[in-house]
Amino acid sequence: MYHYIKKLMYTVNVGTPSVPFGRMLLEQFGGANGELAAAMQYTIQGWNCVDDLGRRDLLLDIGTEELSHLEVVGALIRMHLAPLKTDREAAEADPLVTIAGGGGVALFDSMGNAWTADYLKIIGELDVDLRSNIAAEARAKIVYERLIDHTDDPGSIDTLQFLMTREITHLKAFTAALESLEKNPFSIGRLKPSPGIVDEFLNASKGEGSEGDTDMRGPWQNAFGLHLVDAHGGPGDGLSIGDVHGKIPGEDRGKQDSAQKAGTAVPESELVGSKG
Amino acid sequence: MYHYIKKLMYTVNVGTPSVPFGRMLLEQFGGANGELAAAMQYTIQGWNCVDDLGRRDLLLDIGTEELSHLEVVGALIRMHLAPLKTDREAAEADPLVTIAGGGGVALFDSMGNAWTADYLKIIGELDVDLRSNIAAEARAKIVYERLIDHTDDPGSIDTLQFLMTREITHLKAFTAALESLEKNPFSIGRLKPSPGIVDEFLNASKGEGSEGDTDMRGPWQNAFGLHLVDAHGGPGDGLSIGDVHGKIPGEDRGKQDSAQKAGTAVPESELVGSKG
Amino acid sequence: MYHYIKKLMYTVNVGTPSVPFGRMLLEQFGGANGELAAAMQYTIQGWNCVDDLGRRDLLLDIGTEELSHLEVVGALIRMHLAPLKTDREAAEADPLVTIAGGGGVALFDSMGNAWTADYLKIIGELDVDLRSNIAAEARAKIVYERLIDHTDDPGSIDTLQFLMTREITHLKAFTAALESLEKNPFSIGRLKPSPGIVDEFLNASKGEGSEGDTDMRGPWQNAFGLHLVDAHGGPGDGLSIGDVHGKIPGEDRGKQDSAQKAGTAVPESELVGSKG
Amino acid sequence: MYHYIKKLMYTVNVGTPSVPFGRMLLEQFGGANGELAAAMQYTIQGWNCVDDLGRRDLLLDIGTEELSHLEVVGALIRMHLAPLKTDREAAEADPLVTIAGGGGVALFDSMGNAWTADYLKIIGELDVDLRSNIAAEARAKIVYERLIDHTDDPGSIDTLQFLMTREITHLKAFTAALESLEKNPFSIGRLKPSPGIVDEFLNASKGEGSEGDTDMRGPWQNAFGLHLVDAHGGPGDGLSIGDVHGKIPGEDRGKQDSAQKAGTAVPESELVGSKG
Amino acid sequence: MYHYIKKLMYTVNVGTPSVPFGRMLLEQFGGANGELAAAMQYTIQGWNCVDDLGRRDLLLDIGTEELSHLEVVGALIRMHLAPLKTDREAAEADPLVTIAGGGGVALFDSMGNAWTADYLKIIGELDVDLRSNIAAEARAKIVYERLIDHTDDPGSIDTLQFLMTREITHLKAFTAALESLEKNPFSIGRLKPSPGIVDEFLNASKGEGSEGDTDMRGPWQNAFGLHLVDAHGGPGDGLSIGDVHGKIPGEDRGKQDSAQKAGTAVPESELVGSKG
Amino acid sequence: MYHYIKKLMYTVNVGTPSVPFGRMLLEQFGGANGELAAAMQYTIQGWNCVDDLGRRDLLLDIGTEELSHLEVVGALIRMHLAPLKTDREAAEADPLVTIAGGGGVALFDSMGNAWTADYLKIIGELDVDLRSNIAAEARAKIVYERLIDHTDDPGSIDTLQFLMTREITHLKAFTAALESLEKNPFSIGRLKPSPGIVDEFLNASKGEGSEGDTDMRGPWQNAFGLHLVDAHGGPGDGLSIGDVHGKIPGEDRGKQDSAQKAGTAVPESELVGSKG
Repeated sequence: MYHYIKKLMYTVNVGTPSVPFGRMLLEQFGGANGELAAAMQYTIQGWNCVDDLGRRDLLLDIGTEELSHLEVVGALIRMHLAPLKTDREAAEADPLVTIAGGGGVALFDSMGNAWTADYLKIIGELDVDLRSNIAAEARAKIVYERLIDHTDDPGSIDTLQFLMTREITHLKAFTAALESLEKNPFSIGRLKPSPGIVDEFLNASKGEGSEGDTDMRGPWQNAFGLHLVDAHGGPGDGLSIGDVHGKIPGEDRGKQDSAQKAGTAVPESELVGSKG
Repeated sequence: MYHYIKKLMYTVNVGTPSVPFGRMLLEQFGGANGELAAAMQYTIQGWNCVDDLGRRDLLLDIGTEELSHLEVVGALIRMHLAPLKTDREAAEADPLVTIAGGGGVALFDSMGNAWTADYLKIIGELDVDLRSNIAAEARAKIVYERLIDHTDDPGSIDTLQFLMTREITHLKAFTAALESLEKNPFSIGRLKPSPGIVDEFLNASKGEGSEGDTDMRGPWQNAFGLHLVDAHGGPGDGLSIGDVHGKIPGEDRGKQDSAQKAGTAVPESELVGSKG
Repeated sequence: MYHYIKKLMYTVNVGTPSVPFGRMLLEQFGGANGELAAAMQYTIQGWNCVDDLGRRDLLLDIGTEELSHLEVVGALIRMHLAPLKTDREAAEADPLVTIAGGGGVALFDSMGNAWTADYLKIIGELDVDLRSNIAAEARAKIVYERLIDHTDDPGSIDTLQFLMTREITHLKAFTAALESLEKNPFSIGRLKPSPGIVDEFLNASKGEGSEGDTDMRGPWQNAFGLHLVDAHGGPGDGLSIGDVHGKIPGEDRGKQDSAQKAGTAVPESELVGSKG
Repeated sequence: MYHYIKKLMYTVNVGTPSVPFGRMLLEQFGGANGELAAAMQYTIQGWNCVDDLGRRDLLLDIGTEELSHLEVVGALIRMHLAPLKTDREAAEADPLVTIAGGGGVALFDSMGNAWTADYLKIIGELDVDLRSNIAAEARAKIVYERLIDHTDDPGSIDTLQFLMTREITHLKAFTAALESLEKNPFSIGRLKPSPGIVDEFLNASKGEGSEGDTDMRGPWQNAFGLHLVDAHGGPGDGLSIGDVHGKIPGEDRGKQDSAQKAGTAVPESELVGSKG
Repeated sequence: MYHYIKKLMYTVNVGTPSVPFGRMLLEQFGGANGELAAAMQYTIQGWNCVDDLGRRDLLLDIGTEELSHLEVVGALIRMHLAPLKTDREAAEADPLVTIAGGGGVALFDSMGNAWTADYLKIIGELDVDLRSNIAAEARAKIVYERLIDHTDDPGSIDTLQFLMTREITHLKAFTAALESLEKNPFSIGRLKPSPGIVDEFLNASKGEGSEGDTDMRGPWQNAFGLHLVDAHGGPGDGLSIGDVHGKIPGEDRGKQDSAQKAGTAVPESELVGSKG
Repeated sequence: MYHYIKKLMYTVNVGTPSVPFGRMLLEQFGGANGELAAAMQYTIQGWNCVDDLGRRDLLLDIGTEELSHLEVVGALIRMHLAPLKTDREAAEADPLVTIAGGGGVALFDSMGNAWTADYLKIIGELDVDLRSNIAAEARAKIVYERLIDHTDDPGSIDTLQFLMTREITHLKAFTAALESLEKNPFSIGRLKPSPGIVDEFLNASKGEGSEGDTDMRGPWQNAFGLHLVDAHGGPGDGLSIGDVHGKIPGEDRGKQDSAQKAGTAVPESELVGSKG
């Protein structure tokens, strides 16, 4: 359960309010990569994660912090939107907030799109959820960076710098949580991919490019056992599809190769309850 | 531009059609982690990526292959939905497909939700987009695995095994593309996080848990320089927020520490045009 | 800011899990009248309410409790959905939860619709927001009642009875908060309605009804000064529209009649800080 | 069934068209609290309300009038948007209306969001639906007031004043319809809340506030039998949850205390058919 | 403005209610091709159509009739959904209607998707809007036909046959309204297409097909001046793109060839006001 | 399956980038009538169309070309949005693209609405799908025309003229494909409408109009056997509803009058495989 402490996690000061900047900030309140999305994604993953109580705790620690961040972003936005109430031109630029919302914050992004749970990535497989979270933190970091680039107000920058920094903290924590599972990075779930075909990088885009590019080569065509095959339009389009067979009982399928089960907790020795 | 070859990338055979399974399969046609989402995410990232022609090619190779996968999934679904036209009980279980769509596939997920671009994660920073793609491939792999677990039809399993395998191929390729950028994994974008506060893992969820958990400890509290601080409800909630300062000119901020710029192409020596 | 306590506000026990009932329960997790909608509506109203610190506290008290309720509902759903992982027929009935979510809860309603902030009613005028909240609590009470009617599991009923009861608590509290503003119930905002026309109840639906009804009369045609006028298709359709004039400076318009300003706090004497 | 009379309910005159104001007005055409939302909410409630023919008539009278208002708002918007066709800067500010709609009105709000039935509150319990409608009318009144505040055009103000006035008329009528049901305002539906716990106001937000607030006290903590309990993080978080029991046969549960059934019609004596 | 007559346009009788069929019927209440979509599309087109008062009248005649149809469909659905209140299995199959809506109709489709104005096609060019309407009527006709195919209840079939018939009536009327504009069917809007390239049918899908098809030929490759060109992957992909030039002042561009302006009214002689 | 050729179908040149125009162009990238909508609508119709391999080929030819157009539009938009990265005022006007997307294109329309499959019209009855496509092409032609009207940049006009021209090509091809089915234009699907009532045009909008119109007459009241009946509010509202009867076995119902089945292929003689 939750308690709310009547204090912002970070004190917000705004020198010069800017309605257009306040509107930009809505991306981190009700936007696709914003704080509510982060809070909900991690918290619900945590509630679903009953097999690994350590990482459950991690998910709820960070999910809860993101809720506190949502409040900080909201306070920052309210200060920037304040002129909406007296400045008609500003009001016209953001009619939804002005007319429907009375100048307060609400769960919209910078273009007035209502927040939707379609933004969330919750697949219910712990290692995969951690990967989704790592990507989410990286995106949020970029969004804060871009916001900092669009303001000169020192107080706003301070707050955004704080929030941006915490995304890197969470990125580190989620990475540690994933790596400590000690899974092979290409072993996802329980079923093995078909050998042979799994290592064929298909060259499906061809020819000289409009951007001056030709058919390029890169490490993604020879790392991790990969090699290049060319699309040719025939059966399998160049892939050795003869190697694919249905899921049958036996050694070769339906088992996970070497990695631990995704949901496996950190060994007892590493997880010590604070009261234990 | 695109050419369409009138052939499925993988020949689809269905022994025993199952309408409920056909409905499940819609997750990979018009669902949040499905093939259209993958195709659009990678393709549009590729079109936007004009500074790194090698990884642009990679994104379009894989984006194009996902379009071909969309067609394969669609063919599989149509075969499983075929009884809709004659079986009233089956039809009643999926009225949208039956009544509005005449039994064909359309861009809906298993619960009839229309596909939306809100599913996509396109942030326009190459290394971050690659992380989003790695997470997306991992999720799609899990979805195929779950689908395989819900059918006994050998032909369907064959097709799904093929598609599942290719997700691992793409996972490898995106990982190679990210790693070959040789970026510090915690260096995202251009601005540095605030030192000190970046390493504080905040314990915001506390007490003994309903699931039998106490306050757990794990590597996410001591890896990569992280250490634990306890939320206490006071200013900063335990974080050393005194260390945060606004974006100022100078050494300490506004610069990227050690990593390459995200958009940087692979060195010339590694990228050889196929006609070069 | 928020703290999370690792304990459910109400201990959830489920005797006989039922997947269809679990799906019904999703209405209160990710549905239009569910706990997240309540938590977000009240919390964001509270954050926006900086002129009336007493009612701000009220909104955040209840908003926070609703977050705790969200967790309780989620725990109840997870227990009911547990058979999804082993029962194929159950899985087929809820493919989105099974295939995309791995059997866990997520922010969907009972039909798989993603939660959207379009469910929220946040207008930024305190007395009106309180009315929206009173209506929201009444709707949520009904939803819990209907859920109780669709299960025989004593543990589930216990939990739902708890949650249902709290909606009435909140209904009382919001009503007290509204009534203590001592506003005329028909005085909304600052501008006065046009006299005359404001009291004309327009009879726009006419004739003998298909349900056996004729043109009915009721107190809504003569209470509060109202009287009936008949639609006739001419100018104003029977309304005395000649009485409407533009917003002009002066006594008759642009002022609120007798009530207090919506955002006005409770008198000092009634609001005592707990530390004061 | 419906007849359309080729006449606006209120004659619309616009002196000086303003595209930004036209865009603001879209809130009342295709927005969350706009006229279509009102028309659909009341009309569909009315169609569902077959047990109380008097209030059914009320709902259809007002639902029908709102449709006529929708037309009036549409006419007002079209006049304000007229310069879109010749003024490029105006056109750029509203590209959706200009490019996709040719300058006409359509069912979008001021930010181009398509109207959605997610805006509607239709729960199918008459007294609760009336509460939703009372709140809806109050919100719509505020929206019109804000619109009036953003224009100086006398003709536009006239029209908006007319529409705003009618919201108060409807607010009165819905209030009369609710009060004449003579229900206890805290008796919703059929099931009784658990005594004891229903009267505990939970103080879940604590401490001194960032806005200068402390833990506030107000009538919502002592009216209607309520009293304050403090959240403490233990079982029930301070609530006397021991008092909750499952729905059992007998006196104490499953019955409505004193109020009439929600759907009950006004006594015969009060409801007289116009032809009776 | 609108008047509502308390009578269904078609008397609805249901012999044997069927909840699954009631759910199917929701497609025509709150679905993509349903009656509200039709009513809103034609009505709003009519309100925007101030240059052609004849066709404006047509659009409002049909738009109004569709509103009356919406009511008829709603009455039919309510009768089929009646068992929801007593049959738990039926209730579980449609939890949204049962739990959130109390068994009444609401603006959802058969899978619980909320109605959205994204379904509408309103482009603001009269002849094009008429084409959209012709297609909409054809789709609605098919939906009614499929519904008839999924019930054996004579009363339900009667009602659906009535509604299906009216779609053909409207199809005829919209066709007459389009044809009487006497526009060249390939002359849309004001700007001329580029000669040469307009007549090249591009063969962009190639090879032998998975469905046994080869590269097919048909009248779409030689009617109306069209001829076939093969995609070859080079500049223009086989199209004679050299023929395209920018919009320049002069004869050859920016003018409509021979047809009347889209918005032009029927000649005076054909349009006689009923009171004229 | 698909191959991607690294070349734009049309070379895009932009002289003077304009961010507001770039935003307008998004209508044709991620908007309701844009290129992705066209590509998906035709392609999925084609995949579903297994009974008429000729028209299947047509649908995939055009669907594939639209994908290539999507890329061209995307390239044009990227060039116009380029100043977003350096011009703060431009960035503020389109915060979603700037902050969330880094200045690249994504699947949004001009107001930031995410693309949704709700835009598509796929009914699964070939002749009706062709009608939907004819209307879609006409709408897209208009959108391009309006875009051309809002720019003076010759290179942009060239590209838009090319794309606009192709819409007419496709309009011709879809028309040829429909007409060669040789169906009666008012014979949709298999079931016959009820005679008598099908020919009654209902005058449901009445009286003298606000726009100066009276009750108008036009060819839609007397073409194709139609005649006018007046709404009067009684049973059937003026329609001869006595003529409607349920679907019964026999001559008069359940059969299609004279036309071919919608899905019928062009006669063998007209369809010659390119390799046959």
